[in-house]
Amino acid sequence: MNRLLIALAIFLSVQFAAPTFADDRPALQADPMRMEARIAALSKFGANPEGGVSRVAFTDADISGRDYIKSLMREAGLSVRVDTAGNVIGRREGSVADLPPIMFGSHIDSVPGGGNYDGDVGVIGAIEVANLLHENDIVTRHPLEVVSFTDEEGGLIGSLAMAKGLRETTLDVVSHSGLTIRDGIRKVGGDPDNLDAARRRPGDLAAFIELHIEQGAILHEENIDIGVVEGIVGINWWDVVIDGFANHAGTTPMDRRRDAMVTAAELTLAINRIANDMPGRQVATVGRIRAEPGAPNVIPGRVIMSLEIRDLDAGKIRQVFDAIDAEAARIAEGRETPVRFEPIDVASEPAPTDTSMRRIIAAASDRLALSFKLMPSGAGHDAQDMTHIAPTGMIFVPSVDGISHSPQEFTSPRDMANGATVLLHAVLAIDDGALE
Amino acid sequence: MNRLLIALAIFLSVQFAAPTFADDRPALQADPMRMEARIAALSKFGANPEGGVSRVAFTDADISGRDYIKSLMREAGLSVRVDTAGNVIGRREGSVADLPPIMFGSHIDSVPGGGNYDGDVGVIGAIEVANLLHENDIVTRHPLEVVSFTDEEGGLIGSLAMAKGLRETTLDVVSHSGLTIRDGIRKVGGDPDNLDAARRRPGDLAAFIELHIEQGAILHEENIDIGVVEGIVGINWWDVVIDGFANHAGTTPMDRRRDAMVTAAELTLAINRIANDMPGRQVATVGRIRAEPGAPNVIPGRVIMSLEIRDLDAGKIRQVFDAIDAEAARIAEGRETPVRFEPIDVASEPAPTDTSMRRIIAAASDRLALSFKLMPSGAGHDAQDMTHIAPTGMIFVPSVDGISHSPQEFTSPRDMANGATVLLHAVLAIDDGALE
Repeated sequence: MNRLLIALAIFLSVQFAAPTFADDRPALQADPMRMEARIAALSKFGANPEGGVSRVAFTDADISGRDYIKSLMREAGLSVRVDTAGNVIGRREGSVADLPPIMFGSHIDSVPGGGNYDGDVGVIGAIEVANLLHENDIVTRHPLEVVSFTDEEGGLIGSLAMAKGLRETTLDVVSHSGLTIRDGIRKVGGDPDNLDAARRRPGDLAAFIELHIEQGAILHEENIDIGVVEGIVGINWWDVVIDGFANHAGTTPMDRRRDAMVTAAELTLAINRIANDMPGRQVATVGRIRAEPGAPNVIPGRVIMSLEIRDLDAGKIRQVFDAIDAEAARIAEGRETPVRFEPIDVASEPAPTDTSMRRIIAAASDRLALSFKLMPSGAGHDAQDMTHIAPTGMIFVPSVDGISHSPQEFTSPRDMANGATVLLHAVLAIDDGALE
Repeated sequence: MNRLLIALAIFLSVQFAAPTFADDRPALQADPMRMEARIAALSKFGANPEGGVSRVAFTDADISGRDYIKSLMREAGLSVRVDTAGNVIGRREGSVADLPPIMFGSHIDSVPGGGNYDGDVGVIGAIEVANLLHENDIVTRHPLEVVSFTDEEGGLIGSLAMAKGLRETTLDVVSHSGLTIRDGIRKVGGDPDNLDAARRRPGDLAAFIELHIEQGAILHEENIDIGVVEGIVGINWWDVVIDGFANHAGTTPMDRRRDAMVTAAELTLAINRIANDMPGRQVATVGRIRAEPGAPNVIPGRVIMSLEIRDLDAGKIRQVFDAIDAEAARIAEGRETPVRFEPIDVASEPAPTDTSMRRIIAAASDRLALSFKLMPSGAGHDAQDMTHIAPTGMIFVPSVDGISHSPQEFTSPRDMANGATVLLHAVLAIDDGALE
């Protein structure tokens, strides 16, 4: 996306983006030019030569980005603090005493070699909501908290600390920054020895909402404005171990081979076919493979490959796995190459969003005459941790060509603003008691 | 193979191995017990804990093994020298002046973690032939040269030096011993600065014969005594590069993927099917594979895998490749994942043995009432270099279960002796003018 196209996109956004309520009353709306300008300003911190950012959590670029976010929060009238997990929180008090806050936000850290929209749109969008309320002198009943979570890309660290707490073993992990997570949290102003102070428990928050880019191509290709996220899919990983018999590739005739690679190939096709043919939105992927001994002139005696299955329904994951397992047994027997599946301990359970929150987000979109679609999130998000402690909703906006975790990542100012406007009206609806 | 089984095999060899000519005249024959004892003695040098040897060329174990071979050669009445390429040569003069020598032998170096028979049987068998002639006071017309070639496993180095010469770049290669081939040759008594003295040119040798274990399971499974080798297969290698589109394995629906791994799987199955279905003895193998980026949660954007095709006929290799290439184009188009084949420069041309030599070996086997079979060698051997300068033949004996390059490698004393007896009678037939 070159600068000319960006300029054109901004122009079109301004010309055509003004959302109104479906009944033609003008609606309070996010400013696409302000959001785009802030995204551009934020992308200076950790800018990489390819036009994206490498703003890995706990690096100096992350610190600079966090300082910029704090300044924007203050400008929007928020009082800023950093909790003991390093999460940046900008708070705006409500008019009714003792109501729990409505929290919304995302993260600004990136993967190495990442883009300018993943996470950033949600934080800039949340601040935009605060700006709009501030500028229009709207005081909500509930306190509002805009959050920028610590180290999302390193394992949803900030939201995990807030919703469930961090294990000692997690704190000892060396993150991409080179620091342990413990030292990283300390560096950004948190207190890893007092993480309990960052915890929120069920009832502590009225709701949580995250605005985020889709990171898939569905909204973009179907030309839909808003994704109403039904939940974050569960993820299961296995190592698939296929045992053949390693032998000389020159002296072993074709019909006397027990070639683990050929079995791996047949199984990979079966995995793809099963995930494709079954009704639903499940996905199954073989992303990693290793043949042993791994020489061009030796028939592989063993192949180890990864299997990942994702779905919003844990039962569906099991159903896909069972079908793959049965097919693997059939293939293994036919080729005399035993296949076994070893579960890898990175499984995450599906995290459905709150059904009332989905309804509120869909209603806000509809009222703003924005098209929307219910959809799962195939990627992990801070929102999945937050489902454990608060009614949680999630708003997706389109990613051009579905590209993400790449400098080519792009979401138009118009789409960003649509997302922030839906976020604003969802927050106002919750504040008005839509969840009660 | 445990020691009890070996002892039993030796016993059976001695009881039943005595070959006679088909017309019942007793034939001069190799001694299975002597050969087995020498194989056992040789296997002390570089013995590994698994019961095989790691007698990598140019190591101290190799030096010790070479010293043992020299002592056996002297005991068999041969005059021993080391040529400038480090080949150990034991010579026995003939009765007719100016006739070129008949050369026979193999190698005693092993792969790391190798067995006790690959190469060793050919050297011990060649010395056995010399012993038999010496003990029976038989003087041949031609001089005889028993050879133990330098560093066969590192690239047929000794025979290459003898038949074609070594390039400077080859001499600079660091071998498994840690030494360059140049320094290795010097260490074993050669002179890498004067390699031309080791060259033999067409006409310099009357013939060359190599006795070797099959390293495949065909003779063992079909219960055949002798393989009459039709030639050493040609070997072609390619890197197969499959380009897909790397994408998030969670957010990219199954029907929107361009998954290089799935294409690699379909192509691997096609390669196997084509090599299986085509008439002939061609083999095709995918032994190495790498997916990029290679993470369980990323759809592979690129897969690079090896393709090896071997056949005795270069035209057949081309035919198999063309069929694979056509199928790859079809698969690539269907899956929108371009496939290209990059030839790797380790190709070796097929090296057919001399047809008269095959006839001589077959006739000797037949006369000894040993069953035999014409077959290609799927593995590379020193004999393939020697085809360029001399009428070359090759004798295979069975490998139990086809296991090779492994401590489990085993050939029975009886089978070894059969091979040496055939070698003796083939040498005598050549000496008698069978090639003229």
